[in-house]
Amino acid sequence: MDQLLDTAEKIRSMEIRGAALIGRAAAGALKEFALAIDPSGIEEFNAQVDMAADILLNTRPTAVSLSNAIRMVMRYRGDEVESARTSLAKNADGFVERSLMAVERIGEIGSRRVRDGDVILTHCNSSVALSIIKTAFDAGKDVKVIATESRPRYQGHLTVKTLDGWGIETELVVDSAVRSVINEVDEVIVGADVVTASGSLVNKIGTAAIALAAHEARTSFMVAAETYKFSPETLMGELVPIEERAAEEVYPGISELKHVRVRNPAFDVTPHQYIDVICTEVGAIPPEMSYLVIKEMLGWEMEGRVP
Amino acid sequence: MDQLLDTAEKIRSMEIRGAALIGRAAAGALKEFALAIDPSGIEEFNAQVDMAADILLNTRPTAVSLSNAIRMVMRYRGDEVESARTSLAKNADGFVERSLMAVERIGEIGSRRVRDGDVILTHCNSSVALSIIKTAFDAGKDVKVIATESRPRYQGHLTVKTLDGWGIETELVVDSAVRSVINEVDEVIVGADVVTASGSLVNKIGTAAIALAAHEARTSFMVAAETYKFSPETLMGELVPIEERAAEEVYPGISELKHVRVRNPAFDVTPHQYIDVICTEVGAIPPEMSYLVIKEMLGWEMEGRVP
Amino acid sequence: MDQLLDTAEKIRSMEIRGAALIGRAAAGALKEFALAIDPSGIEEFNAQVDMAADILLNTRPTAVSLSNAIRMVMRYRGDEVESARTSLAKNADGFVERSLMAVERIGEIGSRRVRDGDVILTHCNSSVALSIIKTAFDAGKDVKVIATESRPRYQGHLTVKTLDGWGIETELVVDSAVRSVINEVDEVIVGADVVTASGSLVNKIGTAAIALAAHEARTSFMVAAETYKFSPETLMGELVPIEERAAEEVYPGISELKHVRVRNPAFDVTPHQYIDVICTEVGAIPPEMSYLVIKEMLGWEMEGRVP
Amino acid sequence: MDQLLDTAEKIRSMEIRGAALIGRAAAGALKEFALAIDPSGIEEFNAQVDMAADILLNTRPTAVSLSNAIRMVMRYRGDEVESARTSLAKNADGFVERSLMAVERIGEIGSRRVRDGDVILTHCNSSVALSIIKTAFDAGKDVKVIATESRPRYQGHLTVKTLDGWGIETELVVDSAVRSVINEVDEVIVGADVVTASGSLVNKIGTAAIALAAHEARTSFMVAAETYKFSPETLMGELVPIEERAAEEVYPGISELKHVRVRNPAFDVTPHQYIDVICTEVGAIPPEMSYLVIKEMLGWEMEGRVP
Amino acid sequence: MDQLLDTAEKIRSMEIRGAALIGRAAAGALKEFALAIDPSGIEEFNAQVDMAADILLNTRPTAVSLSNAIRMVMRYRGDEVESARTSLAKNADGFVERSLMAVERIGEIGSRRVRDGDVILTHCNSSVALSIIKTAFDAGKDVKVIATESRPRYQGHLTVKTLDGWGIETELVVDSAVRSVINEVDEVIVGADVVTASGSLVNKIGTAAIALAAHEARTSFMVAAETYKFSPETLMGELVPIEERAAEEVYPGISELKHVRVRNPAFDVTPHQYIDVICTEVGAIPPEMSYLVIKEMLGWEMEGRVP
Amino acid sequence: MDQLLDTAEKIRSMEIRGAALIGRAAAGALKEFALAIDPSGIEEFNAQVDMAADILLNTRPTAVSLSNAIRMVMRYRGDEVESARTSLAKNADGFVERSLMAVERIGEIGSRRVRDGDVILTHCNSSVALSIIKTAFDAGKDVKVIATESRPRYQGHLTVKTLDGWGIETELVVDSAVRSVINEVDEVIVGADVVTASGSLVNKIGTAAIALAAHEARTSFMVAAETYKFSPETLMGELVPIEERAAEEVYPGISELKHVRVRNPAFDVTPHQYIDVICTEVGAIPPEMSYLVIKEMLGWEMEGRVP
Repeated sequence: MDQLLDTAEKIRSMEIRGAALIGRAAAGALKEFALAIDPSGIEEFNAQVDMAADILLNTRPTAVSLSNAIRMVMRYRGDEVESARTSLAKNADGFVERSLMAVERIGEIGSRRVRDGDVILTHCNSSVALSIIKTAFDAGKDVKVIATESRPRYQGHLTVKTLDGWGIETELVVDSAVRSVINEVDEVIVGADVVTASGSLVNKIGTAAIALAAHEARTSFMVAAETYKFSPETLMGELVPIEERAAEEVYPGISELKHVRVRNPAFDVTPHQYIDVICTEVGAIPPEMSYLVIKEMLGWEMEGRVP
Repeated sequence: MDQLLDTAEKIRSMEIRGAALIGRAAAGALKEFALAIDPSGIEEFNAQVDMAADILLNTRPTAVSLSNAIRMVMRYRGDEVESARTSLAKNADGFVERSLMAVERIGEIGSRRVRDGDVILTHCNSSVALSIIKTAFDAGKDVKVIATESRPRYQGHLTVKTLDGWGIETELVVDSAVRSVINEVDEVIVGADVVTASGSLVNKIGTAAIALAAHEARTSFMVAAETYKFSPETLMGELVPIEERAAEEVYPGISELKHVRVRNPAFDVTPHQYIDVICTEVGAIPPEMSYLVIKEMLGWEMEGRVP
Repeated sequence: MDQLLDTAEKIRSMEIRGAALIGRAAAGALKEFALAIDPSGIEEFNAQVDMAADILLNTRPTAVSLSNAIRMVMRYRGDEVESARTSLAKNADGFVERSLMAVERIGEIGSRRVRDGDVILTHCNSSVALSIIKTAFDAGKDVKVIATESRPRYQGHLTVKTLDGWGIETELVVDSAVRSVINEVDEVIVGADVVTASGSLVNKIGTAAIALAAHEARTSFMVAAETYKFSPETLMGELVPIEERAAEEVYPGISELKHVRVRNPAFDVTPHQYIDVICTEVGAIPPEMSYLVIKEMLGWEMEGRVP
Repeated sequence: MDQLLDTAEKIRSMEIRGAALIGRAAAGALKEFALAIDPSGIEEFNAQVDMAADILLNTRPTAVSLSNAIRMVMRYRGDEVESARTSLAKNADGFVERSLMAVERIGEIGSRRVRDGDVILTHCNSSVALSIIKTAFDAGKDVKVIATESRPRYQGHLTVKTLDGWGIETELVVDSAVRSVINEVDEVIVGADVVTASGSLVNKIGTAAIALAAHEARTSFMVAAETYKFSPETLMGELVPIEERAAEEVYPGISELKHVRVRNPAFDVTPHQYIDVICTEVGAIPPEMSYLVIKEMLGWEMEGRVP
Repeated sequence: MDQLLDTAEKIRSMEIRGAALIGRAAAGALKEFALAIDPSGIEEFNAQVDMAADILLNTRPTAVSLSNAIRMVMRYRGDEVESARTSLAKNADGFVERSLMAVERIGEIGSRRVRDGDVILTHCNSSVALSIIKTAFDAGKDVKVIATESRPRYQGHLTVKTLDGWGIETELVVDSAVRSVINEVDEVIVGADVVTASGSLVNKIGTAAIALAAHEARTSFMVAAETYKFSPETLMGELVPIEERAAEEVYPGISELKHVRVRNPAFDVTPHQYIDVICTEVGAIPPEMSYLVIKEMLGWEMEGRVP
Repeated sequence: MDQLLDTAEKIRSMEIRGAALIGRAAAGALKEFALAIDPSGIEEFNAQVDMAADILLNTRPTAVSLSNAIRMVMRYRGDEVESARTSLAKNADGFVERSLMAVERIGEIGSRRVRDGDVILTHCNSSVALSIIKTAFDAGKDVKVIATESRPRYQGHLTVKTLDGWGIETELVVDSAVRSVINEVDEVIVGADVVTASGSLVNKIGTAAIALAAHEARTSFMVAAETYKFSPETLMGELVPIEERAAEEVYPGISELKHVRVRNPAFDVTPHQYIDVICTEVGAIPPEMSYLVIKEMLGWEMEGRVP
C-alpha cells in the first residue's frame, strides 16, 4: 500500500511524467499491490484493487494513458483470489510490455511510409515521431529533417540535439516559419498527447497550424501514437481539457503590465480532416478509424446492442 | 390482428408520425400480435409474425425508424413458440425502452461538448438537439441560442417558444441570415431524419446550407441522432428518397401562374465532410463510423466472410 | 427652394425609394433649384447650390445613389453664374439619362454571357438582373429561371409574377433550398444595393449564402449593378451600414416571448472572391476593378500624387 | 506441381493478367496442388502447401489480388490431411465463386445510386464500373456516359466500343478535357487497382485529376472495387508501389533526344477525401471504412488485444 | 487591294495562323493598302481604309490578335490624306515592332521570377512560355522542365524537341500525370490564346486542370501573354468562343460507332483565382489588372464619364 | 557631399533603419545636396544629382522605401538650375511631409473598419497597425487586442508594452497559438515591409501563417501600408529578396551541432487571396489594386502605349 501511495504521489506531483511512464508506473503499482494484499476472498480482493485503482486514477484524472493503463489491468478475470491475482498481474505485465514495444513497432510501421530522399518536418520532441525517422535512416534512407523550435518550452532544441547525435541532417526553424518551408517537405510527422474518438489530435501547441499549412500545400501529415493515447472518454462526448500553463513561461515580465495578460495553452486540436494517417503499434490507420482502436485495443464498447 | 391493422393504418395515414413514435408503435403492435396469436408450432408462428412485419413495413417503406424497429424485434430467437414469443416481446420492449431513453442520453452526451458561454445555432425543431441545449443549460452553462425560422413550415417558431419557456436567451433569424451570424456561433446542433452508411445527414431543407456556412467559418457542426435513424439500406446502395411537399406550402397563389412551378423538397443532404460529430445514445462518433452503428446497434452485417 | 425641400422630405420619409429613383429625384431637384435661384454672382451661386446639395445629402446619408448623384451634378464648371448653371443642369440631365439607360445597357451586356439552354438562379427582385434575363430570352435564348422566395419580404413573389408575365419558365424555391438545386444552375444573377471599393457586394439578405453555394459547386455568379451603386466612401475605409428591419416582419408574435428577440438584417455582404463578374452599364468587370469605376465613372480620385 | 509452376509462370510473365484472373488462377492452382499431393501427415501437408503458396506469391509480390486470394485459401483448418485438404479446396472454391459474383453484385449495388437521366463520367476501362452503368441502363434508366481516352494506352477506346455495343449514348473526350465537361456530369464512376487501409484509391493514371475536378464542382465520385482489391499490407504502413511503364508507350521517338526522358507512371493515388463512396460486393461504404473490409472480409486483424 | 484580299484569304484559310503572325500580317496589309490608294480626300481615305479593315476583320472575327492589330492601326490621326497615311503606317509599324519585341521582353520579365534550381512545368507549345525558360537558362539558372504531351495534337513533342535542342533537362509526361508530379514543380508557366477582361485565361485544353492541380498543391502558376492577346470585347460581356475541333483528331475510328461521338474542345478557361501572375511585355501583372492592359495598351476605354 | 556620404553610410550600416526613416533620410540628403552644389548649368546639375541618387540607392538596393523616396524626389522638373533645384527640394519636402502624415492618415482610414467591441489580432510591432488600433480606441470603441510574441526577435513584447501604456486590454500569445484563438478575433491587422504589384504582402515571418488561419476561420485580414511600401520593381518581374538573418538569433548554441543548421528567414509572403484590404494613406484598397498605387502615387507607368 505504501508503494502504491508513493507512486500515486509521484504521478500527482509530476515527478513521474510522460504518457508512457505514467501508464507503466500505474500498471506496475497496481500489480505490486495485488500481489501484496491478503484478502479474505475474491470479493475483498476485488474491492481492494478497485480502491487502489481509484487512488491512482484520481492523481491525474485527465491523463489518458493513466486511465487506459488501469482499465486494461482491471480487466482481469478470476473466481478466486489466486486466479484473479495472476490474471491481474499478467494484464499489468502485458501493458508494460506492449508499451515498451510500441515505440519500436511504430518506428517500423511509420518508416515504411518514408521514401529515400524525403524531407520530414517534425514539431516538439516526440520519441515516437523520432523513432520513425531513425528507423528510416537506419534502413539506409537518405532523410533530412526540419525541426521547429516549439515555443514556449523550446523542445525543438532537444530534438535537434538528438538528431545531431544520430548524424541526421537537420534544419531548425522558428514555429512561424513552417509555411515558408512546407513546400520542400515530403511529410510531417508528429507525436500525440491524445487521439479522440473522432480521430482528432490533441498535441503540442502549434501542431494544428502545421497541419493547416501542410494541407494547403498538399503535404502528407502523419501522426505517431501508441494505442494508449486514444481516449475512450471522448466517445461519451467528453472534451479533452487543454491545459493552460504559466504566463511567465511566455513572458517573464508580465506582472509589470497592467492591461496585458498571457494566454499559454499547452496544446491545440488538429481536426482529423488534416491528418492522413495515424501510425500505432497495431497498424497505420486513417483517423476516422480511431473508435476501432478504442474498441479493439482498449476494450471499450458502445453500450450494448438491442435487444 | 385488428390492432395490428389499426396501427398500420395510422402509420400509413400519418396519424402516427415522427420517427420515434412510428418505431415504438410498430414494435408495440408486433409484440401484441405475437402475444395474441395461437399458432400450431414454431413454423406457423414464424410465418405469421413475418406476415405481420411485412404489413407494417409496407405502410411507409422509406421510414427508416419503422424498418429499424421491425428488424430489431424480428431478431428474436426460439425453437418453439413460447420461447420465440418471449424473445420477440423482449426485443420489442427493448426497442421501446431504448427509444424512450435515447433523447435523454443524447442530451447528456452532447451537452458535454457545450462549454459555458457558448452560442448555439439550431435549425428546424429537433427534440434531440433541444435536449442537448437544455441539458447544458440545466447544468448551469450560460448558453445562448440562435434559431432559424425554417421555411416553409416555420418550425423555428415552435423552437423559440420552447426555448422561451425554458428561459434560454434566443434569437430568431430567417434561414438566409445564417451566414451573417455564423461567426458568432460556437457550434451548430441539428437533429436528423436519416443518417446514411457514409455518415451523410438527411435532414430538414436548409441544413446543408448551414453546414456549409459553418464549414466556411470553422464553426463546429454537431448532429443529434438516435441510432434507429441510421439507415442500413444505404449500405446496399439505396439512396434516401427526398420527399417533395405541396407547392401551396411555399406559395398559395401558385395555381394562377402559368409558367411558374414550386419545388418544395422537404429535406436535403449534408455531406459527412461538414459534420464534426454525431451524438447518438451510445456515443459521440465521427460520421464515417456510421456503419459501425448500423452493424453493432442495428445488427446489420456485411454479407459474410470468405470462406 | 420649396420643391427642393419637398423632394428632400420625400426621400427622407422613403416616399421616394429605390436607388435609381432617389438618384434621379435628387439630380432633378438640384437642377431645378439651380435654374430658379438668382444669385448676385458666382460665389453666391456656388454657396447656394452647396447648401442645397447638403440638404439633399442629409436626408439619407448612407444611400449610395444619392451621394453619387449629387457628387456628379456638383462637378459643374463655370466662372460665372450662367455658365455654371448650364454646366450643372447638363450634369443633372446626364445623370438622369445615364441612369435611365443603364438598366437596358446592363441587360445587353449581361445577356451576352447567357447561353442558349442556361438555367439562371436569381434572388430577391432586381430589375437589372431581370433585364439581363429578359434580354437573353428576347434574343431567342431558351432560358429557365429558378427564383428564391426571399424571406422576410417575399420579393421572389414579384419576381415570379414578372417572369410569368414574360412567359419564361420559372421555378420558385424557399431560400434554404438553393444548395439543393445549384448543381442544375448555369449562372446566378443578382442585383446590388452597394458595391464597395474592394468589389464586395452588399445586397439582400441571403445573397452571400447563394454565392457560397455557387462557389462550392463551381457555378458562375454574376452581379448586375449600375455604376452609381459603387460606393466611393468605402475607399476611405467606411463600412456600409447594414440596416436592421422590424422584428415583426419576421415573427409577428415576437412581443409575447420574453427571452426571444428577432434579428432581421436587410442585407449581407458577399466577398468579392465569390463574384465572377459585375455587369455595369459601362462594361462587365471583375469585382477587384471596382475602384476604377469609382475613379473613371464617379470621378473620385485617390488623394493626389507626390509631389 | 507442374501445373502449379505453370500457373506461377503465367502470372509472372503476365500471360495471366488482371486482378480477378490472377486471383482465381492462384486459388485454383493451390487447390489442384493440395488435391494432388500425397503427404505423410498433416505437418508435411502444411509444409508443402506453404511452399506452394510462397511460389505463387513471389510471382508478383505487389499484386494485391494475388496475396488476398492466397491468404484466403490458406486459412484452411484441419488436424489431419483429408480434412485440411477439403477445407483448403472449399476456401479456394469460395474465393472463385465470390470473385465471379462480385462484378454483378457491385453492378446492382452501384446502380441503385444512379438516377434516371444521369450523366456518368468514367475513366480507363473498368469492368466493374461498366457493370454499374449497364445494370442501371438495363433497369430502364436513361443514362449517358462521358468516357476519357485514357492515355497512354487508350483504354477508353475499348470502353466506348463496349458502350456502343450496349446502345448507350457516349461521348469520348481527351483526358485533359474532363474539367471542361464535369459540370454536366452527375457522377464519376471508376474502378480500382488497389484500395488502401485509409480508403485512398490507387487506379489508372489520371483518376486523381478527375477526382479533383469532381470535388471542385461538387460532383459525386464513386469507386467500384471488389473486396479483394483492398490491401491489408497498407495497414502495416506499406506504400503501394506505382509501376513505371515503358517510355516508348508515351513517345516512341524518345531515344533520339539527349536531354529528355519520359516519366510514365501507370497509376496515381486519389485521396479518400475526394471519394464519396466505394461500392464493393458487400456494400457501398465510405472510404474511411476500408479497414473494416480488410478485417471482416479479408480476415486481417489488428495485432491482438491487450492483455 | 489585291494584296489585301490575298492576305485576307490566307488568314481565313488559316494558311497564316498563330496569333502573332495573324496580327502582323493584318497590320502590314492595312499599311500597304493605305500607302497604295489614291483617294480624292480625307473622307475617301477614311472610307477606304475602313472598308479594308472590315474585310480583314471578317476573315476570323474571333481572333483576338486580329481585331487588336486592326484597332491599333486604325487609331491613326490626320486631317488630310498624307498625314493620315503617315500616321496609319506608323501605327502599323509600331504594332509589328512591338509584337516582334514582345516575346523577348516577356522572356526577360518572366525569367526574373524563376530561381536557380527551379522545376518548371509547361503545357502545349508556347513560344512566350519557352522564352521565359530559355532566358532563365541562358542567365545561368539551373532549371529543369516537365512538359505535357498535350493531347490531342501532341504539341508537347515540339516542346521537348526545342528544349532538347537548347540542352535543357526535360521530362515528358502524359497530360493526366500532372497531379502526380506537381509537388516537385516550383512554377507552372503557360502561354495564352486569349486573356479576358476579368483576367481569366483561354488556352489549350488541359490548362485549367493543371492550374487546379497547382492550386491544390500551392504551386505558383504564371501566364505569358503579349498584350494583344487581351480581349477588349469581353469587357462588353462577350464570351470567348471555344473552338470544337474535328472528332477524328481524337479517335480516327469514330464514324464506325453508332452511339458514340467525340467532343474535342480546343481550349478551356482557367479562372483568374488560379493564376498568380500574367507576364506581358509591359510588366508582370495580377490577372485582375487585365482591364488596365486593355485600357492603357489597347486604348479601349469604358464608355465615357458622366457628364 | 560629406553629409550625403554620411547619410549613405548610416543607411548602409543600418544605423538608420526602418522604412520610413530610411526614406525620409534619403529624401533630405538629396535635397541638401541639391541646395549645396554649384553647377555650371542644368546639365551639370542633373548629372550631379543623378550621381548622388545613385550613391544613396546603392546603400541598400532592396529597400523599397529608399528607391521610392529617391524616385519621387528625382521627378523634379526645370530647364535651368534654380528652377530644377526648387522643384527637387519641393519634391523632397513633399515626400517627407506625406511620410509623416501617412501613419496618422492610415490610422483614420483603417479605424473606420473597426467596430465597437472588436477583438483585433496583430503580429510583430507595426506602428501603422498600432495607429489604427489606437485611433479606434481613442474614438471610444471598446477594442481588445491579441498580440503575438513574434519570434525570433520578440517584437511582440514592444507591442504589448505600447498597448499597455495606452490602457488597451491585451493578450500575449506565442506565434503558434494563433489558430487556437483566431475564432475569437474579428480582424487581423498587420503592417507591411513590401507590397508587390500583385498585392501580395512581404512582412515579418509568421504573417502568412496568420493570414492562412484567418482565411480558414473567415476572419478579416487587414494590412496597413504607406504607399512608399509598394514595389514598382515587382511589376517588372523582380522577386522581393527574403533576408536570412543570423542563426544565433534562433539558437545560440548552434555552432556546437555538426549536422544542424538554422534557417532564419526574416519575412514571408502572404498571397493576396488571403488579404481583404490594404489601408494606405490614400485609401483602403483591395490588394489587386496595388498597381494603381504604383502608377498613381509612385508615378510608375507601364511602358507606353502603341503607337
